Amino acid sequence: MTVTVPTLAARVRAGDPRAIARAISIIEDERPDAAALVREIFPQTGSAYLIGVTGPPGAGKSTVVDKLTAEVRREGESVGIVAVDPTSPFTGGAILGDRLRMQAHYEDAGVFIRSMATRGQLGGLARATSDAALVLDAAGKSLVVIETVGVGQDEVDIVRTADISIVVLVPGTGDDVQALKAGIMEIADVYVVNKADREGADRMVSSVESNLTLQQFGDGEWRPPIIKTEASAGRGIPELWQAIRAYRTHSASSRRRRLKARNQFRLRDLLTHRYLEFVEHTLLTPERFDALVDRIAAREVDPYSAADDLLSRSLKR
Amino acid sequence: MTVTVPTLAARVRAGDPRAIARAISIIEDERPDAAALVREIFPQTGSAYLIGVTGPPGAGKSTVVDKLTAEVRREGESVGIVAVDPTSPFTGGAILGDRLRMQAHYEDAGVFIRSMATRGQLGGLARATSDAALVLDAAGKSLVVIETVGVGQDEVDIVRTADISIVVLVPGTGDDVQALKAGIMEIADVYVVNKADREGADRMVSSVESNLTLQQFGDGEWRPPIIKTEASAGRGIPELWQAIRAYRTHSASSRRRRLKARNQFRLRDLLTHRYLEFVEHTLLTPERFDALVDRIAAREVDPYSAADDLLSRSLKR
Repeated sequence: MTVTVPTLAARVRAGDPRAIARAISIIEDERPDAAALVREIFPQTGSAYLIGVTGPPGAGKSTVVDKLTAEVRREGESVGIVAVDPTSPFTGGAILGDRLRMQAHYEDAGVFIRSMATRGQLGGLARATSDAALVLDAAGKSLVVIETVGVGQDEVDIVRTADISIVVLVPGTGDDVQALKAGIMEIADVYVVNKADREGADRMVSSVESNLTLQQFGDGEWRPPIIKTEASAGRGIPELWQAIRAYRTHSASSRRRRLKARNQFRLRDLLTHRYLEFVEHTLLTPERFDALVDRIAAREVDPYSAADDLLSRSLKR
Repeated sequence: MTVTVPTLAARVRAGDPRAIARAISIIEDERPDAAALVREIFPQTGSAYLIGVTGPPGAGKSTVVDKLTAEVRREGESVGIVAVDPTSPFTGGAILGDRLRMQAHYEDAGVFIRSMATRGQLGGLARATSDAALVLDAAGKSLVVIETVGVGQDEVDIVRTADISIVVLVPGTGDDVQALKAGIMEIADVYVVNKADREGADRMVSSVESNLTLQQFGDGEWRPPIIKTEASAGRGIPELWQAIRAYRTHSASSRRRRLKARNQFRLRDLLTHRYLEFVEHTLLTPERFDALVDRIAAREVDPYSAADDLLSRSLKR
């Protein structure tokens, strides 16, 4: 008698929450079998709609995402959430946040929430986030939300390559202009001004409005709407969901462009990661790479010449 | 008669502000002569003390840096400031910010301020920022401040590899925990709680304090102080400068480690940038790289297999 043990990839595809959790851990820990796993699930991905959510710390992104999840669950969508949460290793906040957030959807098998706290060097976080989103996609979640704090290049890239980018702002810091300067304005398909009951909410909306006025929108081009929410009370969430659906319909024909940007980002990221591994572990040893860095720090060689030398020694050309 | 025309690098080393500005523009625009320029100035760098300043948008980082600059100028230090300002191309905020900020130090040849708004792909911002700091270092600025908004991986790396990392926080969003979760807490050598006259300032200080309490500091290990400032009124700025000097004295023996991290980051960044250039322009053409990305987006090939193939075709091994 032959007993068939389903592979982890097969269990992920069947939507098994424990398999999903294990698959994401394998990715997060950068274990050697992570690549094989993504290879195996990759053909079954591409049908989830990716929602990127970003904004400054304290804007209430988690609450917006949680309430949005409750809203879309009523319509039968299944939801996977990857919260990029570059938390201090000292506070362990990511894990705590996970538990707190899971409570709201604890009984609901249609929702899977995972915080990513990876702080690997060389863009490890971006890579792990994309791969975790693939796992949720392969597991059949119809919506996958990637939620990031902050405005760094990596995180902006993650959100920008989602199917829709939502920027959550909050009034009350008194520094509207600073928020507008945060480098996340040009990526928004939908703006959310959360905590809209606070003083300054209308001023924040006006700031975003005048920012939009400076941009030229062509005929039939999407003009990002500004949705006022009080997420903790659920206010504005149905309007947000409506805006997401409107954008999805509007952008159906251009979705290919986003998919492409996403995969371009992923391929470049993998290439650079593996090239550095080759240089530091095969071409040199970690010790010899280290010694070279020491020589640069001592100004015995400049970094451009050192890079040129390593390139010419490593590349077939 | 021979007329000697000083090279741009020589004029940078002489501290000529127009040469500094031009050198940074060459770097920011990623012009082909940027590498040669950095090569030429590199041996004269390494004496500036690099101060990294980060924190969430709206924390008042620019004001803190400007007032700190005024403070240290009185002691004869010369100051270069690189403000990483990933501003929307629509608002042109970086350039405006530059002009507004320059006014305060307009008559002072000992201060050079430059906002970097580069948003090149592949970590172009981090690379340009490091190189701009090198220019200011070569130009003889005794302090070089790198100021970044946001908490992304790249920006954290920039600040972490400075000689001292200052994290500026602000009370009043009512989300202290969020601020603590911003991924920038573990890199701070000095905390600033700015706008300390605001409600919630003491609560913010307590939050940071309890965060520090969770960490274990060994005998003689630096425990990051928390400085309360009202930067717009100049309050707390002398105390901040004192904390910076105390850290500098304390960490003199470990400065080598920071210098090394900085140069490791730079070498890896250059290697990855150039390797991708090779793959996309020499091994393949941009069109063929593009076609490969299309095949990944169409799920005809997975990104790991595509990366493996490109690596084996490009590397001598």
